[in-house]
Amino acid sequence: MDVLVDPDEVQAKTFHWKREGVRIGLVPTMGFLHEGHLSLIRIAREKADKVVLSLFVNPTQFGPDEDLDRYPTSVERDLECCRKEGVDMVFMPKPHAMYAEDSSVSIVEKSLSRGLCGLSRPVHFGGVLTVVAKLFNICLPDIAVFGEKDAQQIRLIRRMVRDLNFPVEILSGPIVREEDGVAMSSRNANLSPEARAQAPWIRKSLLAVEEGVLAGERDVEKLKTQAKQVLSKATLGELDYLEFVDDETLVPVDKVAESRILVAIAVQFPGARLIDNIVITNASN
Amino acid sequence: MDVLVDPDEVQAKTFHWKREGVRIGLVPTMGFLHEGHLSLIRIAREKADKVVLSLFVNPTQFGPDEDLDRYPTSVERDLECCRKEGVDMVFMPKPHAMYAEDSSVSIVEKSLSRGLCGLSRPVHFGGVLTVVAKLFNICLPDIAVFGEKDAQQIRLIRRMVRDLNFPVEILSGPIVREEDGVAMSSRNANLSPEARAQAPWIRKSLLAVEEGVLAGERDVEKLKTQAKQVLSKATLGELDYLEFVDDETLVPVDKVAESRILVAIAVQFPGARLIDNIVITNASN
Repeated sequence: MDVLVDPDEVQAKTFHWKREGVRIGLVPTMGFLHEGHLSLIRIAREKADKVVLSLFVNPTQFGPDEDLDRYPTSVERDLECCRKEGVDMVFMPKPHAMYAEDSSVSIVEKSLSRGLCGLSRPVHFGGVLTVVAKLFNICLPDIAVFGEKDAQQIRLIRRMVRDLNFPVEILSGPIVREEDGVAMSSRNANLSPEARAQAPWIRKSLLAVEEGVLAGERDVEKLKTQAKQVLSKATLGELDYLEFVDDETLVPVDKVAESRILVAIAVQFPGARLIDNIVITNASN
Repeated sequence: MDVLVDPDEVQAKTFHWKREGVRIGLVPTMGFLHEGHLSLIRIAREKADKVVLSLFVNPTQFGPDEDLDRYPTSVERDLECCRKEGVDMVFMPKPHAMYAEDSSVSIVEKSLSRGLCGLSRPVHFGGVLTVVAKLFNICLPDIAVFGEKDAQQIRLIRRMVRDLNFPVEILSGPIVREEDGVAMSSRNANLSPEARAQAPWIRKSLLAVEEGVLAGERDVEKLKTQAKQVLSKATLGELDYLEFVDDETLVPVDKVAESRILVAIAVQFPGARLIDNIVITNASN
């Protein structure tokens, strides 16, 4: 397994791979790998000849008051995981190798990024899209795999690929959960034991929505009320948002009707802001 | 010579070329080809195995009051030129194939794009960078060739390539001029005969700067005064800007010193806004 830090060196290598007809799969991560990440590696492994995992806590996607300084890391353990999973190359650049001091070009999205996490994290998605575009150009993947926990992120990345014509196919891996239902996230490590004990109520509030729809409820306000009632058990958490949006346009809806609806939630706990989501339809399963 | 309109079809073809180890040269144009464009094709021809010329009057780089509707076209003549010059593929998409109705992702630059043409054309360079990024992703060039007449544009494109890590080498071709010194531009066709007759004063004003420097003048204000005096003969033209800026940062300078200085000018004539430039140094030649 190659472990490389220099973007130019990675690009020279992946460029050479492409010339040889090698299909490259990219799994972009911020490290502190968990089973969710490993599931994405396995998808890449299955669909591509060579798997590149990037391990980079991207500073430009964190706002000034966010948890960049507290984001957990464990490089040695991450590299060991990658070796075990058969990753071919780990790309772990330093921030200064990714961003020149006079860096001035970035990518912006003006529609899908406005609501949900974009509301409380105004610089986040511009930072995400810019670093993903850079990773695409450096790693030259045929496919790239992202987790469905970051629901808004993956929709934005698909939009960027479409609007800027990146020659990359975007695949997604379903949310991987702890035994108690909490969506796996590197940030879970930053929760106090008390907050961690309350985190399952996030998932349970989404399941309450699903049950409500199965029971025939179609009114979004009523479904929200049911969900919030469940979530109120998480006394340490503060709801950032609970939104029902069209799965493609991310525009809020007020009825559960024909189209697919993304139900997305973000809860700020002491130590970490957690997100989760489900997709429902009229005949939700 | 292939003439293709579908971005996906072009991408499939260029992707296949890359796999075969073919070096691709791209010459992005808005059509109405002149000798300036042909010189760029020849550079691409020399440096690459296959030459792709894009022919697309990109609507997003024109402001609402600009000359999109009046931009000259001559597709049949352009294709004939391309055939003669040995172009391998012409890519001439329709606007709706390049921009989805709900297109929402674009590229922004916040430093080099602020002055010079960016001042009077605030949406221009975002549009240019976005379409060039798309063309890079569709045509997958190893090299791309741009004309030095568009001095700010080529510096912005190099900056984008650096900041977003595009695996593309940017080459430039020197300004090609008419016999009377006017920089070739498709827009020259939109000048009235009277305005066309006055257009050489733009170039002459730049030559006055060069002469001034050779004569020992180092003060930018004085050099500007000399140039404007020459330009005053172009009674139909209105000076948009005449700027002396650092060739790399595009920050205005007030002395001709060690570093390379870009002297850039834009003049609005009835029918067309013309630009031109020279690069000078302390020991200007």
